Amino acid sequence: MGKNSYINPISLSEVSISDPFWKNYMELIRKNVIPYQWEALNDRIEGAAPSYCIHNFSVASGKTEGTFGGCVFQDSDLYKWLEAASYSLMWHPDKDLEEKIDSVVNLMEDTQQDDGYLDTYYIINGLENRFTNLRDNHELYCLGHMLEAAVAYYQATGKEKLLTIASRYADCVANIFGSEPEKLHGYPGHEVAELALIKLYHVTGKEAYLKLAEYFINERGQEPNYFSLEEAAHGREKGWGYTHGYSYYQADKPVREQTEAMGHAVRAVYLYSGMADVARETNDPSLITACETLWNDIVNRKMYITGAIGSSQHGEAFTFAYDLPNDTIYGETCAAIGLVFFARRMFELTHDSKYIDVMERAIYNGIISGMSLDGTSFFYVNPLEVDPVACKRDFHKSHVKPQRQKWFGCACCPPNVARLLSSIASYAYETDEDTLYINLFMGCDIHTTLNGHMASLSISTHYPWEETVSIRVTDSSSSRYTIAIRMPGWCKEKTFSVNGCRYRINTDNTISTADAQSLVPALECHLEKGYLYLTKEWNTEDTLVLSLGMPVERIQANPNVREDIGKCAIMRGPLVYCLEEKDNGPNLHRIYLSSQPDFHVTYQPDLLGGVCTIETTGSFLTFPEWEESHLYQTYQTPSLNEKKLTFIPYYAWANRGLGEMLVWVRV
Amino acid sequence: MGKNSYINPISLSEVSISDPFWKNYMELIRKNVIPYQWEALNDRIEGAAPSYCIHNFSVASGKTEGTFGGCVFQDSDLYKWLEAASYSLMWHPDKDLEEKIDSVVNLMEDTQQDDGYLDTYYIINGLENRFTNLRDNHELYCLGHMLEAAVAYYQATGKEKLLTIASRYADCVANIFGSEPEKLHGYPGHEVAELALIKLYHVTGKEAYLKLAEYFINERGQEPNYFSLEEAAHGREKGWGYTHGYSYYQADKPVREQTEAMGHAVRAVYLYSGMADVARETNDPSLITACETLWNDIVNRKMYITGAIGSSQHGEAFTFAYDLPNDTIYGETCAAIGLVFFARRMFELTHDSKYIDVMERAIYNGIISGMSLDGTSFFYVNPLEVDPVACKRDFHKSHVKPQRQKWFGCACCPPNVARLLSSIASYAYETDEDTLYINLFMGCDIHTTLNGHMASLSISTHYPWEETVSIRVTDSSSSRYTIAIRMPGWCKEKTFSVNGCRYRINTDNTISTADAQSLVPALECHLEKGYLYLTKEWNTEDTLVLSLGMPVERIQANPNVREDIGKCAIMRGPLVYCLEEKDNGPNLHRIYLSSQPDFHVTYQPDLLGGVCTIETTGSFLTFPEWEESHLYQTYQTPSLNEKKLTFIPYYAWANRGLGEMLVWVRV
Repeated sequence: MGKNSYINPISLSEVSISDPFWKNYMELIRKNVIPYQWEALNDRIEGAAPSYCIHNFSVASGKTEGTFGGCVFQDSDLYKWLEAASYSLMWHPDKDLEEKIDSVVNLMEDTQQDDGYLDTYYIINGLENRFTNLRDNHELYCLGHMLEAAVAYYQATGKEKLLTIASRYADCVANIFGSEPEKLHGYPGHEVAELALIKLYHVTGKEAYLKLAEYFINERGQEPNYFSLEEAAHGREKGWGYTHGYSYYQADKPVREQTEAMGHAVRAVYLYSGMADVARETNDPSLITACETLWNDIVNRKMYITGAIGSSQHGEAFTFAYDLPNDTIYGETCAAIGLVFFARRMFELTHDSKYIDVMERAIYNGIISGMSLDGTSFFYVNPLEVDPVACKRDFHKSHVKPQRQKWFGCACCPPNVARLLSSIASYAYETDEDTLYINLFMGCDIHTTLNGHMASLSISTHYPWEETVSIRVTDSSSSRYTIAIRMPGWCKEKTFSVNGCRYRINTDNTISTADAQSLVPALECHLEKGYLYLTKEWNTEDTLVLSLGMPVERIQANPNVREDIGKCAIMRGPLVYCLEEKDNGPNLHRIYLSSQPDFHVTYQPDLLGGVCTIETTGSFLTFPEWEESHLYQTYQTPSLNEKKLTFIPYYAWANRGLGEMLVWVRV
Repeated sequence: MGKNSYINPISLSEVSISDPFWKNYMELIRKNVIPYQWEALNDRIEGAAPSYCIHNFSVASGKTEGTFGGCVFQDSDLYKWLEAASYSLMWHPDKDLEEKIDSVVNLMEDTQQDDGYLDTYYIINGLENRFTNLRDNHELYCLGHMLEAAVAYYQATGKEKLLTIASRYADCVANIFGSEPEKLHGYPGHEVAELALIKLYHVTGKEAYLKLAEYFINERGQEPNYFSLEEAAHGREKGWGYTHGYSYYQADKPVREQTEAMGHAVRAVYLYSGMADVARETNDPSLITACETLWNDIVNRKMYITGAIGSSQHGEAFTFAYDLPNDTIYGETCAAIGLVFFARRMFELTHDSKYIDVMERAIYNGIISGMSLDGTSFFYVNPLEVDPVACKRDFHKSHVKPQRQKWFGCACCPPNVARLLSSIASYAYETDEDTLYINLFMGCDIHTTLNGHMASLSISTHYPWEETVSIRVTDSSSSRYTIAIRMPGWCKEKTFSVNGCRYRINTDNTISTADAQSLVPALECHLEKGYLYLTKEWNTEDTLVLSLGMPVERIQANPNVREDIGKCAIMRGPLVYCLEEKDNGPNLHRIYLSSQPDFHVTYQPDLLGGVCTIETTGSFLTFPEWEESHLYQTYQTPSLNEKKLTFIPYYAWANRGLGEMLVWVRV
């Protein structure tokens, strides 16, 4: 792979987001979520269970007396907050926030052991037990989040202290784990260190970090199984692995032999992301193949239409092909975020837009559904069908909350949403030597370097509500570079114009001009793996206008999906839609969509922060002669009473009180 | 209520079943199940976990050294076996079996304490703790099953020893529990003693047993809650009651205030049966109303079409109205049996056939489905929809077994099936002073006393496969009595003839003669609460022929049942039918029934022990242009390919290897 093809996310300091849809989310994170989480980390939220996070560092550093509090992986809450806060500093410098971070970094420095070790659980409870329970106790998980935070803070501020702390812990781990006989031959019980070590490798250039990530991945699932050895060595009970055969940890076989996405969904996609990273760095074809196989297993057999993954609450895990129950789903927000990490890396590896299609699906649906529109409450579980009575009275749906919750004992999802949304621009735009990849469509100003020259562009759009995306070149000096625009997989009617010359992208992936006379001079354009590549010497005021046809689409699931037989879902552009009781009354299961529906799309500026609703006429199933008290009776053809239906975007559900919700509607 | 209306089950010694359908089940129980269970109780089944049941008695009586083994309610396994064996003795005397029982009775006598107490768990583990954990530890549950066994053995043999042992234990309990201040104000955590005490009252005439049953029922759920007091007094953890608010035990409020069937389904219907018993004995209108309210809640809102009850594996419990998932159902065999107990008692209380309709539904579907056709394996859980892959790979369906199991650690269902089937004739026929009630239709010879005279009848039928039931009077001396025949609720075309004179039962419940000239002399006949009452002086060779029209019926569930929307079930007569993969291939969820189906019924003597199959032409949903690897695509109208469908009776499913099964089919 040549240097030119080495794509990386754009730096957040090179993009200024102006898009109302995304700017709103970013500001919610910056103004509400990050400050709220800071208070939570410091146990200053009244009525909430304490986090103990900062407390633990204070105790571990010897500053205060006390015991360890919270989950064994409590440190990671601080690191995810640090990462989110660092991203926000890149697009909104904030002295006060930076000071808070520096104070925490000092506390971490005081807590770090001489050999670099830094995990408050073991520092407080006894270092002699460190690294004796990789399976359950998340030390390497915390390491991973620390590295991600450190890289982010370094990139945001240039300050090296946190990066040094993180590197020292990574060095400590690299001294303990590895293939050498005297080292431990283990790997993380909960993955994330793999992808984080690659981030650290990128900023430090130290090969040891790449090697350690590679070791963790190659050693995983080898026989004899490390978790079994560790269990025996320390006389411990069998964990989840006992019933799940280690597939819960993706450690039942070596990663290159894993052909099915299995086990805890967050762990799985974090691992696969690390695998994709290492595959790219080492150009290892067997690892690339493994990533592609696992990717295909997820998106072709185990992913909800919203990008949610993890069909079962039991182990928060993948189950089996086409098992996609809508009402008992797990679909953890964090898992969809992990899928986005995996998608981004697969795109970087292959330059194929199909990965970004999945990223877009997850972000616009199963991820932002995880946070309320006011940024104050969160879903762990993102169901596609909800009956609030069932959530309350059916134990097997009790993990499905019909309303977002304020905060959680195990607070993984809110800070994960925060770090994704505060760095959303880096998912939208990536660059290599001479190309700007536009993956998601959002209004912004970009100032980056392409082919050694500054390139400035201004993008404006009302996506996902409107079809048009305008890209205007705003730099003063002309320079030659490529703009690569993702052609969304969902879109069938794609046209664009360059300086007013109109082009159409045909279904056979050829490009034709609307008007043969008026070609743009010296424009090279071609389509490849779902990208429209436009190369020219771009001049100030060059304008590119993209139009992505967004009719309402009815979507059908593979007939092997038992839960969705005879049903369809409504999408428009990247958005999945749903019915809510608020608009459509109760008993959504009795609603039928017509076979030839007319859809009316209306932008409603005052509804749910501004959304397009979709209205149509469907029907409501009734039995005119049914004796209400009877449970069973002789079949009679039901009456289908005409009923006006209103769909809202799925991500915006559960923002108007308690009620039923349904994505897959009967046809 | 006059004496004439006091209905009781016929004595098993008065009926000789000749019916091939039922005789086969009875013989399986007698020849296979009872001997197998005897071996199991004695820990002589190779490869099976030991029962410890006889062992515990041996240890408790001081005969052998050892510790208690098995569940806290292990004694009840012996008692259920004793009860089933006793019933079989009534229709098939067996010296060898009687000797085995007598040996066990002697062992029980040796185990019984001076004050009558008899529970091996506490005798072995410390009597000082007896009756300190009514909530969890099942002493009164074991008492109940002991009483039922003792009554049955006494009725079978006239031997009094077991009855005396049981009465002594009942006396012991009556001395300890009751309203008097010095007594304990508790009641069973798992109900059954209530109905059993009434049985003991019936054979002994001792009012104390009625009073104790009444006390248990009236005290239940009063405040302060006894289980809470007991918990506090003995410093115990909160049990299931903590999350279920004592409704798990039907002890969250006094029984007369309970309007919803809640909690553990077996406990619930055992309690309701006891309530109906006490209501009849005390003629208490508030208790009768409570029984009717709870009955209606079950059959109108919480009962599967097969008579199965208990929608959730969590607590093996009822959930909420119309929550009837077909694939995650619990539907324990024992719970359907308990529903039969409740139904019988409600019939005895009201003389209304609607209760027997439910009894028949449960027996012919959700109960006999619990045993394989060869009597060697059993279901606890009786699902209405099974995908074997899901049972294996979805934890939340792991309680649903796609194949019957040999034996269970907690062996409640097999002996419960055994005691029901070995006494099936007593469910079919009941009598009062002058009336023989024919509730279920099965071939047999009856010799009983009506109006002080011997009445002998011979019934022959090929029910449930054929529509005709013939009843021939075989006694030599004429006497006046009433034959009351249940008119099944499922049947719309009912005719009968007496000595060749034909009558029709009209939909308005009037009776008309087919031929006005030929009325049977001095026959009084009328319909009341679903019974055809025929009174005359019956003479030898009088012949009554009943014809119950049995077209194939499509049945629909109440539209509030989310799981069954757009689906129908197939019934013929009392039998629910199902599709099996064996006959119809995989992916049963893609099968659609036509809107105007033709059904072909064929009796197949060599299939599944002889069943009527139902064949029709339906369709199989396919998407001709579907790319198999895609999970989602734009909606296209699916193709419905014509497909021959074969339905078999639900009870006979899972007798031909592993595969999918489906009751509710899409229309």
